[in-house]
Amino acid sequence: MNISSSASESYKTIDASDLSFFRSFLQDRCLDSIEIRTEYGHDETEDLQFLPDVVLKPVSVDEVSKIMRYCSEKSIVVTPAGARTGLSGGCLPIEKGIALSMEKFNQILKIDENNHQVITEPGVITEVLQNAVREVGLFYPPDPASKGSCFIGGNVSENSGGPKAVKYGVTNEYVLNLEVVLPNGEIIWTGANVLKNATGYNLTQLLVGSEGTLGIITKIVLKLIPHPTHDLLMLVPFYDAQKACEAVAAIFKAGITPSGLEFMERDALLWTIPHVPNSSIEVKENHAAHLLIEVDGFDPEILMQDCEKILAVLESFETDEVLFAETQAQKDQLWTLRRKVGEAVKSFSIYKEEDTVVPRYELPRLLETVKRIGKQYGFQSVCYGHAGDGNLHINIIKGDLSDEFWNNELTIAIQEIFTDVVAMGGTISGEHGIGLVQKPYMSIAFNSVQLDLMRSIKNVFDPKNILNPGKIF
Amino acid sequence: MNISSSASESYKTIDASDLSFFRSFLQDRCLDSIEIRTEYGHDETEDLQFLPDVVLKPVSVDEVSKIMRYCSEKSIVVTPAGARTGLSGGCLPIEKGIALSMEKFNQILKIDENNHQVITEPGVITEVLQNAVREVGLFYPPDPASKGSCFIGGNVSENSGGPKAVKYGVTNEYVLNLEVVLPNGEIIWTGANVLKNATGYNLTQLLVGSEGTLGIITKIVLKLIPHPTHDLLMLVPFYDAQKACEAVAAIFKAGITPSGLEFMERDALLWTIPHVPNSSIEVKENHAAHLLIEVDGFDPEILMQDCEKILAVLESFETDEVLFAETQAQKDQLWTLRRKVGEAVKSFSIYKEEDTVVPRYELPRLLETVKRIGKQYGFQSVCYGHAGDGNLHINIIKGDLSDEFWNNELTIAIQEIFTDVVAMGGTISGEHGIGLVQKPYMSIAFNSVQLDLMRSIKNVFDPKNILNPGKIF
Repeated sequence: MNISSSASESYKTIDASDLSFFRSFLQDRCLDSIEIRTEYGHDETEDLQFLPDVVLKPVSVDEVSKIMRYCSEKSIVVTPAGARTGLSGGCLPIEKGIALSMEKFNQILKIDENNHQVITEPGVITEVLQNAVREVGLFYPPDPASKGSCFIGGNVSENSGGPKAVKYGVTNEYVLNLEVVLPNGEIIWTGANVLKNATGYNLTQLLVGSEGTLGIITKIVLKLIPHPTHDLLMLVPFYDAQKACEAVAAIFKAGITPSGLEFMERDALLWTIPHVPNSSIEVKENHAAHLLIEVDGFDPEILMQDCEKILAVLESFETDEVLFAETQAQKDQLWTLRRKVGEAVKSFSIYKEEDTVVPRYELPRLLETVKRIGKQYGFQSVCYGHAGDGNLHINIIKGDLSDEFWNNELTIAIQEIFTDVVAMGGTISGEHGIGLVQKPYMSIAFNSVQLDLMRSIKNVFDPKNILNPGKIF
Repeated sequence: MNISSSASESYKTIDASDLSFFRSFLQDRCLDSIEIRTEYGHDETEDLQFLPDVVLKPVSVDEVSKIMRYCSEKSIVVTPAGARTGLSGGCLPIEKGIALSMEKFNQILKIDENNHQVITEPGVITEVLQNAVREVGLFYPPDPASKGSCFIGGNVSENSGGPKAVKYGVTNEYVLNLEVVLPNGEIIWTGANVLKNATGYNLTQLLVGSEGTLGIITKIVLKLIPHPTHDLLMLVPFYDAQKACEAVAAIFKAGITPSGLEFMERDALLWTIPHVPNSSIEVKENHAAHLLIEVDGFDPEILMQDCEKILAVLESFETDEVLFAETQAQKDQLWTLRRKVGEAVKSFSIYKEEDTVVPRYELPRLLETVKRIGKQYGFQSVCYGHAGDGNLHINIIKGDLSDEFWNNELTIAIQEIFTDVVAMGGTISGEHGIGLVQKPYMSIAFNSVQLDLMRSIKNVFDPKNILNPGKIF
């Protein structure tokens, strides 16, 4: 890969005395075998691999604090890692040093039914957390495609979205308070366990989405809401992908707020079907794209009315026969299909995924832009994503393209796409974060004044630049 | 008043050459008569008054930028002001210098029906904005009691709440993007016009609630939602104020999310009734408190069902007969009653208002704490507020209390209340901000590590400390 390290800092290389210090309190949770270092040297981003010197697995906030105090004194680099399901390389230890895995922070500390809140450690799998609160009728909505394996702490660090965000909002709308270890080892809470807060600067929202560059999250207080009791799901085939994109804003304009509104181009669905056992979905020759539309709530009749309104809107957009999921099994299959698109694309070819987001009415223009630039530069793309939020994942397929094109010319094509995205009022990442791989494009989204503000904030939290250096900017 | 200026900076006093510079492009929007300076020297906070040297009323972002560039070079203090309806003294020019009124920024720039967004200038009255977007079926929910006079820019600066926040969230959940003039005169946008954003640090959320200390907001992009078509409103008298507080969390636990859930102590209602013409509300001798409960949505039958569920919950809490508002006029009257409590208290006596917020299940404990400490120190309090959010406004009545008590001993009593609030997981301001008058209590909510982070962030944006100095910390 061609992303070079940008750091000009001189970091301390980890030596035997450092290892001996870490082992003194972490024991066998300080690991430096080549197998383990290899394992923690990659995430789900493309084919990237960076070896850390050592992997540490603390179990308590005091251990994290002790590690950071030591590393701050010695100028040792620390890169926090969750479940390493990220798609922007945020947890890759590009400057070597310590990979700090939060996997032992795997306890849900308190489900507070009285206040509709949950206090959790960051290493809990998002779906595990969702299921636990659902048992008492409560709902934690943000559900990235990787919800069965990603950690809630990673979701907070990347401000993750997922299909439900269109109705319920992304991660940051649920985070009330965070316990954080600062780079110098100090432990703070960022706010209070309350639904409204006008007390000082919003450190909580500054930490959410900061991609592990400002502090290490050790506890999370989340807001919960009542879990909807009913949902309806339909898959709508369109003969024209542009029309599918146009239908998105039209549905909202009719006053409906779906709980899911996903777009999948023809190839996305075709490639994914073999990955879902017993799928009965038929993609006809003239199907150019599909919308997967879900409504949820507490009253089945209202949901039926919502569906009828949606069907009325769709009449103007030339669709083939709409498939209504009739059983829970069918719903599960459709959602599995949607969730596995990323995996399917990955197994098809080396690829790059861009995570563009625009105001939703601009979606047709965005799709048109991507295809036009693809044609001009000669690359194939498969687009899918959270259309209701205007969030389109653009998967660029390597296929037979040369490494030379892939590493150089393509970058210019992506710059062109991003420039148009920003001109539409959008930005370059909706939910995957900037991490390592989107860093070269940050100057398209932000000018030097904005970037200098961000860098200066980083410097306030981490003056020695030891925490996840070389990410975001 | 006894709040002394904390600034040790040496600011430049405004002289004839400065006035001449400002007049060169602001003409008669540069005002230094004693009448105007007096007018801009106070807001709605207690009886505070600070004279600025001059009042400037720019009309464009370029004028604001020009003013800030000049003031930054000369070290002249600038205090931005909106409609001056604040309750924490955030816009008071305590260091003299310039009062920068944003009242000429009074245009709604674009109501974007296609994307459910509005782009507005900060000097638009919140209710004017709400009414404008409602005309196209859209809803901007945050509605502070002062919505008929406050500016949307002030709401963003204070992260305002209001009764609807319990279902729809406070201001920060609607702010997508901000145009801001930095203290050095640079103009930036903080984010993008999108519903989800994982691109760099969240400067937007850092600016929201920063009380005019980090930058001057010149444009605001807000998310809108479909406006509910129906609502139902009921006023519930309780024989015991504690029970009224207990009923709040019980309603949510039953799976209902009201669109308003307001608590009013006996005196709050009694004192306010004379301020509402033709009020037909009867407060009986044995009524200790009332809850005002609203549900809203798109289906009247569902709302009736919600009300029935609420009534079923209330059966356990010993209430008198529930008053259902039968007409729009009756609904308006009940809401006017609630909105005028602050004004009524103000006309009754000199008072101090504390804006405590706790997790909602702790509300009974909070009320008990306030009354116990009041008894111990010998002060009368009237409590009311947004009970559904756990946000209780504590109005401490001066009445016959000595100035000596008011200015000294009472501070200790308030510290005791706030200490208990923080121990409950709450904090010292839910929606009014810290501004000037809550500043002495910040160390109860935050320790020196947290406060140092905030101060350092302030220093990043405003190294000369010329923008609204002496506020928050």
